[in-house]
Amino acid sequence: MKLATLRDGTRDGRLLVIRRDGAAATSAPDEWRTLQDALDDWERAERALRALDGALERGAIEGVPVDPERLAAPLPRAYEWIDGSAYLNHVILVRKARGAEPPPTLQTDPLIYQGGSGDMLGPRDPLVLHDEAWGLDYESEIAVILGDTPLGTTAADAADHVRLVALVNDVTLRNLVPTELAKGFGFFQSKPATAFAPFVVTPDELGDAWQAGRAHLRVRSTYRGEVIGDCDAGPEMHFSFPELIAHVAKTRRFAAGTILGSGTVSNADRARGVSCLAERRMIETIDEGKPRTPFMTVGDTIEIEAFDAGGKSPFGAIRQKVVAPS
Amino acid sequence: MKLATLRDGTRDGRLLVIRRDGAAATSAPDEWRTLQDALDDWERAERALRALDGALERGAIEGVPVDPERLAAPLPRAYEWIDGSAYLNHVILVRKARGAEPPPTLQTDPLIYQGGSGDMLGPRDPLVLHDEAWGLDYESEIAVILGDTPLGTTAADAADHVRLVALVNDVTLRNLVPTELAKGFGFFQSKPATAFAPFVVTPDELGDAWQAGRAHLRVRSTYRGEVIGDCDAGPEMHFSFPELIAHVAKTRRFAAGTILGSGTVSNADRARGVSCLAERRMIETIDEGKPRTPFMTVGDTIEIEAFDAGGKSPFGAIRQKVVAPS
Repeated sequence: MKLATLRDGTRDGRLLVIRRDGAAATSAPDEWRTLQDALDDWERAERALRALDGALERGAIEGVPVDPERLAAPLPRAYEWIDGSAYLNHVILVRKARGAEPPPTLQTDPLIYQGGSGDMLGPRDPLVLHDEAWGLDYESEIAVILGDTPLGTTAADAADHVRLVALVNDVTLRNLVPTELAKGFGFFQSKPATAFAPFVVTPDELGDAWQAGRAHLRVRSTYRGEVIGDCDAGPEMHFSFPELIAHVAKTRRFAAGTILGSGTVSNADRARGVSCLAERRMIETIDEGKPRTPFMTVGDTIEIEAFDAGGKSPFGAIRQKVVAPS
Repeated sequence: MKLATLRDGTRDGRLLVIRRDGAAATSAPDEWRTLQDALDDWERAERALRALDGALERGAIEGVPVDPERLAAPLPRAYEWIDGSAYLNHVILVRKARGAEPPPTLQTDPLIYQGGSGDMLGPRDPLVLHDEAWGLDYESEIAVILGDTPLGTTAADAADHVRLVALVNDVTLRNLVPTELAKGFGFFQSKPATAFAPFVVTPDELGDAWQAGRAHLRVRSTYRGEVIGDCDAGPEMHFSFPELIAHVAKTRRFAAGTILGSGTVSNADRARGVSCLAERRMIETIDEGKPRTPFMTVGDTIEIEAFDAGGKSPFGAIRQKVVAPS
């Protein structure tokens, strides 16, 4: 099942059920006007939403055309946004770029940060660049949206709490990171609003691509019209989503609608390219002594889309343009 | 005006208007069933809620008795919880306790972390101690709840976005902090759910105690029945709430209902005592070579309450007991 949120002038938008080809949609029943409403009451909501999904697929409901321009983030405001950094190749490269060592527990203790969740961007929302010196970067990631998740949830039980899978652009202001991390309290100003692909899907919608708590999809990043990364999100995700969930649930419980990210998808094979500019700049530094690729600037475009082995695009595409403040 | 949230079986509870003496309450109009509803529509909601407040004060509405046992956190789940560390005496002492230096920008660049906001505790909720080795500590703080706050809000404009003032226990698992901060991404497991005093108040309700974006109140912490701290929350808050708001809004905007904390209230005058055990342990280490006070254990009680110069308690008391998991 595929869902999306239509901008309708309200803070949380209107929940849509999307036909599997991504071309047609129908509104969710009024009882679950928003995705948060559905997540709060998932057992009942899921049945009703899957019935609409079936009717759309059979053609019993025609649906209306989907316009990604009119879609918001699936959860335009969410109760938590937690981001891991589960692709170790990314951690190693980005820390190298900052002249920092990866932590000694890199392979055993997941890196996680708490992100801001009150303002999420839709798939076509511009990236407003307030100051070029901040070093705007995109980061292509997979994320899951959780149902209610108790404290102490183990990795073995965690899969039951994964409701939906998403594709995100975890925007980062690279040049604000070093001073912020030096203060010791983690990212804050360096992490502006995160953007989401048009659709979220239930794990079963990914079919064989959802394996061992990982999305075995290729995540393609197209920057300024050039395919800059076509990375495999599956095998090199060192910690699976269930393992990340067990980590975050050690001392806390989570409300339905909590979003948990994988961290930037990254492959050791350089031929796959990169899912953020910081990695490309680090590779240039290793090869050529200094970075050649600047960070993003006004007029730049970034497109992020994931594909399964059959070439299907479950989430649709994030397409954002960097703009000056109006 | 004084507000609270009654547990009514729903996720967000039921908004109450509280008589100024804290003893009687009336339900908010159905149009604003929850505090989040009111914050989302503040201009209209505030008028209606203040009318009820006036009627309670005049005795035109009798109200029903307030039972703090039945109150939830004002926002049982919130869109963001951001915590500063604006009392520099606390930063210096706690870093000393960890053998870490305060950052060189201590006086010019606020320390801020993004906390978890999907699960907030009410004023009588127990503190469940899952593992004594985690080093459970309380932290007494003032917080503000914001209305919609645009990116780029300046300190001069920030006061307009402060809707409510709160008293919180920012619970910390001290022994999980060092490894977590060593990884570089900030707190996560070390910050379990935060607890809130029964009532939130509009800044005007604090009268002269709300000055220059700070709450000039005494915050009393009573641990195991002993007053362990009676700290002044006003003058030593190095960064005011408007300054903290300007800091967090540099690169992001915030949804109504975002909660922003002051950090642990701390005074250089040792006679005031402490607003967390970590400070007391550090003082013992300085004086006696090692800490004598253990962290919290099952059966311990912590009570946190703030008083104005006239002895009034605007928020009511947080009263929590440490319990074993059931």
